[in-house]
Amino acid sequence: MLDDLKQQVLAANLALPAHGLVALTWGNVSGIDRDRSLVVIKGSGVPYSRMSVEDMVVVDMDGRVVEGARPSTDTPTHLALYRAYTEIGGVVHTHSTWAAAWAQAERPIPILGTTHADLTPHDVPLARPLTDEEVAGEYEARTGDVVVEAIGERSPAEVPAVLVRSHGPFAWGPTPGAAVEAAVTLEEVAHMALLTELLSPNAPALGGKVREKHFSRKHGPNAYYGQGT
Amino acid sequence: MLDDLKQQVLAANLALPAHGLVALTWGNVSGIDRDRSLVVIKGSGVPYSRMSVEDMVVVDMDGRVVEGARPSTDTPTHLALYRAYTEIGGVVHTHSTWAAAWAQAERPIPILGTTHADLTPHDVPLARPLTDEEVAGEYEARTGDVVVEAIGERSPAEVPAVLVRSHGPFAWGPTPGAAVEAAVTLEEVAHMALLTELLSPNAPALGGKVREKHFSRKHGPNAYYGQGT
Amino acid sequence: MLDDLKQQVLAANLALPAHGLVALTWGNVSGIDRDRSLVVIKGSGVPYSRMSVEDMVVVDMDGRVVEGARPSTDTPTHLALYRAYTEIGGVVHTHSTWAAAWAQAERPIPILGTTHADLTPHDVPLARPLTDEEVAGEYEARTGDVVVEAIGERSPAEVPAVLVRSHGPFAWGPTPGAAVEAAVTLEEVAHMALLTELLSPNAPALGGKVREKHFSRKHGPNAYYGQGT
Amino acid sequence: MLDDLKQQVLAANLALPAHGLVALTWGNVSGIDRDRSLVVIKGSGVPYSRMSVEDMVVVDMDGRVVEGARPSTDTPTHLALYRAYTEIGGVVHTHSTWAAAWAQAERPIPILGTTHADLTPHDVPLARPLTDEEVAGEYEARTGDVVVEAIGERSPAEVPAVLVRSHGPFAWGPTPGAAVEAAVTLEEVAHMALLTELLSPNAPALGGKVREKHFSRKHGPNAYYGQGT
Repeated sequence: MLDDLKQQVLAANLALPAHGLVALTWGNVSGIDRDRSLVVIKGSGVPYSRMSVEDMVVVDMDGRVVEGARPSTDTPTHLALYRAYTEIGGVVHTHSTWAAAWAQAERPIPILGTTHADLTPHDVPLARPLTDEEVAGEYEARTGDVVVEAIGERSPAEVPAVLVRSHGPFAWGPTPGAAVEAAVTLEEVAHMALLTELLSPNAPALGGKVREKHFSRKHGPNAYYGQGT
Repeated sequence: MLDDLKQQVLAANLALPAHGLVALTWGNVSGIDRDRSLVVIKGSGVPYSRMSVEDMVVVDMDGRVVEGARPSTDTPTHLALYRAYTEIGGVVHTHSTWAAAWAQAERPIPILGTTHADLTPHDVPLARPLTDEEVAGEYEARTGDVVVEAIGERSPAEVPAVLVRSHGPFAWGPTPGAAVEAAVTLEEVAHMALLTELLSPNAPALGGKVREKHFSRKHGPNAYYGQGT
Repeated sequence: MLDDLKQQVLAANLALPAHGLVALTWGNVSGIDRDRSLVVIKGSGVPYSRMSVEDMVVVDMDGRVVEGARPSTDTPTHLALYRAYTEIGGVVHTHSTWAAAWAQAERPIPILGTTHADLTPHDVPLARPLTDEEVAGEYEARTGDVVVEAIGERSPAEVPAVLVRSHGPFAWGPTPGAAVEAAVTLEEVAHMALLTELLSPNAPALGGKVREKHFSRKHGPNAYYGQGT
Repeated sequence: MLDDLKQQVLAANLALPAHGLVALTWGNVSGIDRDRSLVVIKGSGVPYSRMSVEDMVVVDMDGRVVEGARPSTDTPTHLALYRAYTEIGGVVHTHSTWAAAWAQAERPIPILGTTHADLTPHDVPLARPLTDEEVAGEYEARTGDVVVEAIGERSPAEVPAVLVRSHGPFAWGPTPGAAVEAAVTLEEVAHMALLTELLSPNAPALGGKVREKHFSRKHGPNAYYGQGT
């Protein structure tokens, strides 16, 4: 079942080590079939080097396994995002090094340049800490809630990634592949922002006009980057 | 048309990911046929993994497409450079990490060693910020203007790269391949200069005699590096 | 003899350069056959590019060669760990860059995030310095003693790695492959922790509840990460 | 002529990009035939991707070309080292990033750990600046002189590398391959030392006993690392 989506989710998972975003079995990508309300996600702890379409697990919107083995432990976080935003088609979680460093430093990533504005016109938000009760209870589902809380009033297209405090990034997009592109860009943005801080501890935020220009030339109705659709 | 130039420009574009200067679809290289006043440049948003000669777009000096699909959004910046300097045969733009960090820190790259002097005897200049009007209007063409402004009275052979503020580097040379070599060297120079600052925040500029020695042994009439032409 | 174990130890050694943990001939992994009280370890100074099962040396618990050429100079350190903890099945030593930097800075690696807690709920300990007498005598055996001392009252499953002061990490696990996984995770943890310090010199330690959650979801009787055994 | 030596020098040159020590056409390795007093060195500006044994140039001890095209511009520096020390059989020069950063910061690399002591029991010296006269005259030969001056009273086996100020490292050994191993180790040592400084700006020098232990277990008559000769 869901062969096409499984292939997409497999390819997106394999793109994570190819882009240097994960080590060992870390990280996971999922995709959703909105018509059937089913999500395909990587099996828990499967190594990338021998991952196949068989390792893609199908779960329903409550996280019950419909087909396959044990899904990623982070599945409830993915589901919280799919439930909150119908425009999201793919979700990715990694511990990519530079983004994780900002998460561990408990700092949002400030918008310091156009590479960042190509992804989002906002700082990359840092989710609030979970309470001890939230950690002790349904930890992964509550992690999804604080990610949604960090997006706040904005759309997930405008805020395509959030840092989970002391943990690492979640990113998303209309497809599993687009979610991975957001994660790749985020990691590069995190890297550049840290280096910028080393060179100039109080580097100014990117001006509003350039932010809008770069975000809108890549995203939305007036985009003129790429070959169209 | 322009088959030879297209092959050169394709090879130069493919050299960008090979040298680790670009992620995803970022970056672009162009080349010019001075006799016909035509420029070949990468199509907008084309992924490197499946880029072919078909993705090379031919434009005239006003940016009108003569052959191919939608050219890189940065085409007007490239054209501004070709118009300003007849000795330029290739132009490259990247968001390479370390050079972009200097651009985001809004600092020129100081000349701290001989690797830098092998490229240019000057600090790598930082272009002035664009005004809100310039951003709102023909943003990419105005970006070309501030790059030319940053070169100033000097020749583009002496100043083979400029940092666009909060954005990233443009580099150039007599051919598309030479432009990529300048971009590779610039990234290494940016990396070394940041590390040097960490070790010695007030490292002195390279002495004038060594600057001249290194630049002139690689460039100009008395060069003795390489196998000649 | 011990063909199976030799293959495991060979594969684990070859994983070191594949994960970027070693240069040249540095680093070594061993594995133990508890029934026969024999240890298989890499030969001393053998380059990874032409390492074969023939380069795996068999030694007894006193370090006497039972089969093969000269074993790794660090063999006595490995043996000290096997003698101290019967639950250890594999040991690895590297000079991996980021972990070695913490060792040279003579600082334990503070627990700053969930990637660290996935490995251990404790700071990664720094072994005490060896005395001049210990260095002059059986240096490698005494190095094993101070590693055991640094684990202290805790179990080697809870503390799967220690930094040898001014030197580099030792890591271990139930198998040679698991020991390498600990070393890979440690290096990533060391990298993230250093970057975190650059962004926030006084980043707080990860909260106790999240530590326990992450460590226990991957290790021990209530683990729910992975596909089970 | 000198076919064996040419093959060794070619292999040593090709090892530079394989170890990430050079970009583009930078860097060079040479080897000497002491019986014939002839040196084989890489041709100037030859790209590594299409380097063959034909690009190895034979020069005499005065730098006159005996066979082949134009030798590396740094040939006179190599020759100065061969003339000063009969025990040197191979010399390498790179602009490897982390070692070059120390050279640009005009700081010797302090001995902070055992990886360093495995290479040398001393700080890696920084050569004195060349005078304007030395730069204007036989620049490359004078560079060789200040490298020799930096080794001083010590042997080139004990001091297997020197940083040329604002430039980059030269390293050497009994063979071209051993020289490259010294350059690889030096780069790693430079990387670790910079990271150590970030974590602990006043990290103490490695104790004398451990220095001697590590250097002597790898080098000299009592070495017990490796498989012997």
